Amino acid sequence: MRQVDRIIANRMQSPVATIPALADHLINAGGKRLRPLLTVASARLAGARDDACLKLAAAVEFIHTATLLHDDVVDSSQLRRGKVAAHLIWGAPSSVLVGDYLFARSFELMVEAGSLAALDILAKASGVIAEGEVLQLTRAHDLNLGQDVYLEIIRAKTAELFAAAAESGAVSAGASDQQRRAMRSYGLNLGLAFQLADDALDYGGATETLGKNAGDDFREGKATLPLLLAIARTGAEEAAFWDRTIGQKDQSEADFRRARDLIVSSGALDATLDLAADFAEQAKTALHAMAAGQWRDALADLADFAVSRRA
Amino acid sequence: MRQVDRIIANRMQSPVATIPALADHLINAGGKRLRPLLTVASARLAGARDDACLKLAAAVEFIHTATLLHDDVVDSSQLRRGKVAAHLIWGAPSSVLVGDYLFARSFELMVEAGSLAALDILAKASGVIAEGEVLQLTRAHDLNLGQDVYLEIIRAKTAELFAAAAESGAVSAGASDQQRRAMRSYGLNLGLAFQLADDALDYGGATETLGKNAGDDFREGKATLPLLLAIARTGAEEAAFWDRTIGQKDQSEADFRRARDLIVSSGALDATLDLAADFAEQAKTALHAMAAGQWRDALADLADFAVSRRA
Repeated sequence: MRQVDRIIANRMQSPVATIPALADHLINAGGKRLRPLLTVASARLAGARDDACLKLAAAVEFIHTATLLHDDVVDSSQLRRGKVAAHLIWGAPSSVLVGDYLFARSFELMVEAGSLAALDILAKASGVIAEGEVLQLTRAHDLNLGQDVYLEIIRAKTAELFAAAAESGAVSAGASDQQRRAMRSYGLNLGLAFQLADDALDYGGATETLGKNAGDDFREGKATLPLLLAIARTGAEEAAFWDRTIGQKDQSEADFRRARDLIVSSGALDATLDLAADFAEQAKTALHAMAAGQWRDALADLADFAVSRRA
Repeated sequence: MRQVDRIIANRMQSPVATIPALADHLINAGGKRLRPLLTVASARLAGARDDACLKLAAAVEFIHTATLLHDDVVDSSQLRRGKVAAHLIWGAPSSVLVGDYLFARSFELMVEAGSLAALDILAKASGVIAEGEVLQLTRAHDLNLGQDVYLEIIRAKTAELFAAAAESGAVSAGASDQQRRAMRSYGLNLGLAFQLADDALDYGGATETLGKNAGDDFREGKATLPLLLAIARTGAEEAAFWDRTIGQKDQSEADFRRARDLIVSSGALDATLDLAADFAEQAKTALHAMAAGQWRDALADLADFAVSRRA
């Protein structure tokens, strides 16, 4: 991963000083590098001997970084990875354009990695991610969003890149169709588990460990699963509370605490964490198609880690 | 080009209704399709027999459309191709995300076109375009911008995609290195000619034929070449006028007419058009390396067309 970090640091350079400054602000803010780790581990697990997968991994992180930059503009987010969001420092236009730059650089890296099949997987994933963002944009404040639509959104927004990161790594190493499908399934389920755990943390964690403000989703009126389940479970008696705080975004700090209490007492938080644990198990099951060894063990551990984060 | 349009119409579809609605608004607003035409003509000129170049051409138009969507958000533009800019109808977040979607789809199309070399050219061009946009963002209101820096900006923002459109078309058809360089030079010079003619039209054209308001560049305080040359040529006696209208953006409608008069009387407009004509000639000269015939004639005509537009 140190080698991947070197490629990332090298490829985000530009004579236009705003670009490395803005990119560095986000990239070196302590992201977990989960997605590129997935690409490298999947490639090694599928038998990769050379280092083409390192460039592919850097490309995956660039796609992720570009989507974060655009996401924060779209959502007017204040914090990212515990730091002030880039668009609040350099302005939204710079964040949009540096995102575009990193996206372009990611495809250059994929060309160098040399696998047209891996490139196809990541190009398609990028389209699905943007599609999911637009879908979320039109539905984000819908308090009656069904669990199915919510899972569809996070599948597109988050899990698709996990799936593509794993699948493209395996494909670049010449994986069989069966291995390719297994790694895609692993990544997809891991991504769903990871996002649901993240959604739960927003109602259970503390700002320092989250890298974002606990309660941010609530304050932005984001319809994540813990909230959607709590709204459905608390029924008519709390309808006015949810409508005021989420529907009309008329909130005090005490409202967040009450929402958190309702989410815990209604069982919505545990239900979300249980669902996350189910996806993590499915991810581990998918790994059975792969050869046993240190890389498979590492990916199984990663699935456990995704749902064990507590703040 | 009708086949290219069919690919474009087909690939901008999505079950998320905002995407085709927003994309269609811009794509079917009567763009000239100059860049995809360049790709197809370059490929045919280099001997392409199959239709892979049509997908490549659609990819080029998608890159162009994505950059227009992001550009209009970044510049808060009001009009595009004679219609209300998409971000004013669907909001800036949707414009950013649909741009991302089209960018991703463009790389899918490139994968299908099957030339890793062509893909590399267009990925690198996309990075250069974003870099040029950021550079312009930081320098756009600098009244002392030198002609060299201005040409560097439009080389990156506009001419690079023309160059990549032509070069990638030729490369996808198996062009020699010499042909490849010739087509890149043709596209680059054509793009510079085209942009300078466009800059001149903003001070010489009428809204109906421009597809944008004449005087938009002036009203936005954009430092384009006619303005930069006029500022340099009119010297101290007009410094207060330029500082108020461009530096401080304190303008009346009469100010635009005065600026236009100064740009014409100082010779700045003619100097811009002369430079555009020079680049168009260089574009035609580059074509000498290619085989004579209908495709070469068409590309030579395109260079003449780029600088003959008058409103």
